[in-house]
Amino acid sequence: MRAFQDYYPEHLAQCYGCGRLNEHGYRIKTYWDGNESVTHFSPRTFHTAVPGFVYGGLLASIIDCHSTASAAAAMYRSQVREMDSEPPFRFVTGSLLVRYLKPTPLGPPLTIRGQVQEIKGRKVVIKSTVWVEGVRTVDGEVVAIQMPENFGI
Amino acid sequence: MRAFQDYYPEHLAQCYGCGRLNEHGYRIKTYWDGNESVTHFSPRTFHTAVPGFVYGGLLASIIDCHSTASAAAAMYRSQVREMDSEPPFRFVTGSLLVRYLKPTPLGPPLTIRGQVQEIKGRKVVIKSTVWVEGVRTVDGEVVAIQMPENFGI
Repeated sequence: MRAFQDYYPEHLAQCYGCGRLNEHGYRIKTYWDGNESVTHFSPRTFHTAVPGFVYGGLLASIIDCHSTASAAAAMYRSQVREMDSEPPFRFVTGSLLVRYLKPTPLGPPLTIRGQVQEIKGRKVVIKSTVWVEGVRTVDGEVVAIQMPENFGI
Repeated sequence: MRAFQDYYPEHLAQCYGCGRLNEHGYRIKTYWDGNESVTHFSPRTFHTAVPGFVYGGLLASIIDCHSTASAAAAMYRSQVREMDSEPPFRFVTGSLLVRYLKPTPLGPPLTIRGQVQEIKGRKVVIKSTVWVEGVRTVDGEVVAIQMPENFGI
């Protein structure tokens, strides 16, 4: 099964968090599970905050990329389009809010689950949560914006 | 001149973002500049989002660690204490909000500037901004909480 990120056009697949072509990056993979999007991720031993716990910046990063990927997938779904149809949808982050509910233990794999809160025009709002061994440790909310044609110009 | 992070006790200096002892991490260094805190950081070429621009997760990470370091420094200042006095202050992130105002070009060094918004009990709120070549590209707000003695227990 292809992940959301496997559909990114080649020139947009370099992202450190989710680009399949960035050999230094996290290369996360996100899939549908019913109406939720799901990413599994195993931090490295050096992704530490206080010893024994996952670095908060990594958690923010994974939430960010999980959510923008989920936003693109949600937009395809809302338009009843396949993810390999043209033109491709790709989203950037307008804002990212992360609430650290409790320390996330470093060791077990993490599960990030996303829910679509809103689709309006070019904006998609995704709520994402981080789970480890059945415990929810982090809540995130991403306002994702469909990438403009002139992005960065 | 010693940076804020140079005062972290050894067992709390492993953080991927700001721990001077994490050889895989960013090892950011933060200093006072009057009433503002300042960090300079040069992303690597692979810290990319869309080609040519800095990865948003990295920007969130740097804002996070810059802000928790600034929170500790602000608490020492508010108590008219030197940063090498005991007991040490160390802060964790309660929440992190990042607004991406415009794409951040990848190449030039980044400057992150922090301002203390509030100190109340064990909570410090820091507003941080990212600048590149004189342009403000990202706004951040971190609610930092003084690390409890039983953190993670």
